[in-house]
Amino acid sequence: MKIITFKTTKSSPYQIGIIDSSQKRIISLKSLGLGIKEMQELIMCYGRDLEQKLQGALDNRTGDIALNDIIPAAPIPHPAQEIICLGINYLDHAEESAKFKKEAFDGKREEAVYFGKRVNEATPDKGIVPSHKNITEKLDYEVELGVIIGKDAWNVKKEDAFDYVFGYTIINDISARDVQLKHKQWYFGKSLEGSSPMGPYIVTKDEFATPPIMQISSYVNGELRQKSSTDLLIFGIDYVIEELSRGMMLKAGSIISMGTPSGVGMGFEPPRFLKPGDVIECTIEGIGSLTNTIGE
Amino acid sequence: MKIITFKTTKSSPYQIGIIDSSQKRIISLKSLGLGIKEMQELIMCYGRDLEQKLQGALDNRTGDIALNDIIPAAPIPHPAQEIICLGINYLDHAEESAKFKKEAFDGKREEAVYFGKRVNEATPDKGIVPSHKNITEKLDYEVELGVIIGKDAWNVKKEDAFDYVFGYTIINDISARDVQLKHKQWYFGKSLEGSSPMGPYIVTKDEFATPPIMQISSYVNGELRQKSSTDLLIFGIDYVIEELSRGMMLKAGSIISMGTPSGVGMGFEPPRFLKPGDVIECTIEGIGSLTNTIGE
Repeated sequence: MKIITFKTTKSSPYQIGIIDSSQKRIISLKSLGLGIKEMQELIMCYGRDLEQKLQGALDNRTGDIALNDIIPAAPIPHPAQEIICLGINYLDHAEESAKFKKEAFDGKREEAVYFGKRVNEATPDKGIVPSHKNITEKLDYEVELGVIIGKDAWNVKKEDAFDYVFGYTIINDISARDVQLKHKQWYFGKSLEGSSPMGPYIVTKDEFATPPIMQISSYVNGELRQKSSTDLLIFGIDYVIEELSRGMMLKAGSIISMGTPSGVGMGFEPPRFLKPGDVIECTIEGIGSLTNTIGE
Repeated sequence: MKIITFKTTKSSPYQIGIIDSSQKRIISLKSLGLGIKEMQELIMCYGRDLEQKLQGALDNRTGDIALNDIIPAAPIPHPAQEIICLGINYLDHAEESAKFKKEAFDGKREEAVYFGKRVNEATPDKGIVPSHKNITEKLDYEVELGVIIGKDAWNVKKEDAFDYVFGYTIINDISARDVQLKHKQWYFGKSLEGSSPMGPYIVTKDEFATPPIMQISSYVNGELRQKSSTDLLIFGIDYVIEELSRGMMLKAGSIISMGTPSGVGMGFEPPRFLKPGDVIECTIEGIGSLTNTIGE
């Protein structure tokens, strides 16, 4: 099931809906008489009952609103907490990062790298990402699989980890490389305003294998830059949930961004950073495509 | 003004109050007929009107609740976002950290180090900090000055920065050194459940000079471990607000933890990490004292 957050006019409140079988219209939860207004609430309420109700609507209805007529929002416009991101979680990207930082790379990773990414407001599909040219000259893209946690996860074993997953989305982990590196810890360079495009939907986990195997790609101005598959992740979703939940409660609605494959701007020689007007398209098989433009 | 969050019984909701002039009783906002129930709300509503009302009460009343009778809560029990922390922001601590990591230290810092610290629930004064002995053998303490942002700060100049400060509190930035270092980025080792003791109050900025100059200390089982002054910060509060707000909106209620002086456990030879039963007391002049015990 593809679940979308949207508005019908700029000033109207957020709504939630599911994409109907035509893939062109939305069945709004309002039209189903459901009072759920935000994704966080839907995640908290999700269970067999609600799933069956939504699946029933999907089987028997066409959407009440055309996808073309909405103002898209990120699936979780205001995440309750920072995004938990993985650094360097595909081997080929580990290699290009080491090269950029002029470090040796020994071909293996023994421990996952985690960092937090502050999000005041996630940027929706078709939204503008500010260039922040007053503080960075090295803005970069990173297509990533976003994992949405469905229920509070504490001390979860690897074999049970997928019970705690609600679904998946696409995240573009926009990174100001100069800011990221000069402050040593990556947090600030990863957290610039508007640097968390997310969407266009959350797709529930039942639509994928366990673990999910998805092609993942990014394009800049139509040119393919990144192309990989989630079965090449170094640290898998179940590993990460087990490791993190031994030390911190992953609350329902938490977002884990699984890291990016090679092909980012800093990996080219010379590097190819983003500039105003550039259009980045991130695609993940079975989820869709997240397109954003760099602003002035 | 010292503002406190508390409960009167374990199951009752949070309340807000101010410490009266005896320093032993609380004037609850409820007793003043004010409907404000949480610190975040108070910060949003704070302005000349509310300040005068509270100051009037402070001048004319004694508290309706004894400090001894409450269940303390952290001033902001559930921060809306991660704590923004500074790493290595006192020169003497820069030196001891470099030694612990067996790195060279050149005696200067050119850029501030920022990282995020996830907080599901801040630990109150007198609260237990879990030892997390299943994943760390190197739990450490760090007394820090917490700066509470009072209104949304975007692109703020250094000379205006203190207009955006609401007040100050004490934070103990509990750190699992082994987890912090093995994952390269510090996020996970700083974010273990219950590792953000905060309190006992927020003291509004009008009680301090601009910038505030406060003695800052920590004790473990009564033994002095850290002792410094906030005028030895490498990057000051105004510098940090200017730098961060150029790239990200610091929303009202945001918490910035200004880094710790030397004397942490990893700085000793051999290191002196925390163990179950240890009592850590963090004190900052003009704010008070935050005491926590390491649990099993």
